Amino acid sequence: MALPREYAGQACSIAKALEIVGERWTLLIVRDAAYGVRRFSDFVTHLDIPRRVLTERLKFLVEEGILEKQPAGGREEYALTDKGLALFPVIRALAAWGDEYTSPGGRRRILRHVACGTILERTGRCPECDLYPPVGDIESSPGPGLPALTDDDDEVTRALARPCRLLEPLVLQR
Amino acid sequence: MALPREYAGQACSIAKALEIVGERWTLLIVRDAAYGVRRFSDFVTHLDIPRRVLTERLKFLVEEGILEKQPAGGREEYALTDKGLALFPVIRALAAWGDEYTSPGGRRRILRHVACGTILERTGRCPECDLYPPVGDIESSPGPGLPALTDDDDEVTRALARPCRLLEPLVLQR
Repeated sequence: MALPREYAGQACSIAKALEIVGERWTLLIVRDAAYGVRRFSDFVTHLDIPRRVLTERLKFLVEEGILEKQPAGGREEYALTDKGLALFPVIRALAAWGDEYTSPGGRRRILRHVACGTILERTGRCPECDLYPPVGDIESSPGPGLPALTDDDDEVTRALARPCRLLEPLVLQR
Repeated sequence: MALPREYAGQACSIAKALEIVGERWTLLIVRDAAYGVRRFSDFVTHLDIPRRVLTERLKFLVEEGILEKQPAGGREEYALTDKGLALFPVIRALAAWGDEYTSPGGRRRILRHVACGTILERTGRCPECDLYPPVGDIESSPGPGLPALTDDDDEVTRALARPCRLLEPLVLQR
């Protein structure tokens, strides 16, 4: 599979960013990491991605300093670095656009400022506190546009059907 | 080339958005359209993209209602629709991240609110006017991180080395 790191003629920060995160699956891995997915097997479960592809993407994201490996009880987990957390506005902007134009039932997920419980504006600003909460101070909960769970849904999808604080490891019923 | 419209298991607005704009080149076409590139030949010139690929991408973006064709003096031009303009926060967030993490010389482009000349915050807010200017009220100018022009640069790159108001057709020296 061709890598997208080939926008050679583009002296542009958008192109440079896409050379790093524009590859298929990459931003969904970053999204999952923000939701609290940390283990290789949980990324596989939730994304339904070939293990070989996930291995490549995680390796590249670690090399680029977007994820870091952390030891966790005899295994390794992946966590977003500051550079990775700085991608959250990209994720949030994609989500806002996807909610508006691909979700007839309304928002699929709702982001709130944990400190005050206020729903964030599309820009990521908390109108109550007049600030842009850091990722770890945001709670994500299902919105009206999110489909109901089915028996086929995996445990990560099930965990995300409950409100969860971003960056905190997801509580999975294994 | 495999299309990325295959995140079938992902009931997520980020995945849905990426199914539409996650394909290679697509967001750079949207970026160019925001910069004022309107003609097929100018997209080719600036992006150095195979004509066949550009044709496919433009067709898909028109089908998805992100671009619309407009007659212009015997030829057709492409312009962003409201749905396309709504992608600007994604573009801006990618640019901010690319500036911060891939540009040791500082920002490659600087965005100002036309009405007051103030540089926008990374969030897109004008701190002087306390609002988020619509795309057409933003001027883009080269920042310290943008490389100097060379003899090899095409006319679109040359035009973008001058301040330009977003959405206004680029003034090209043909």
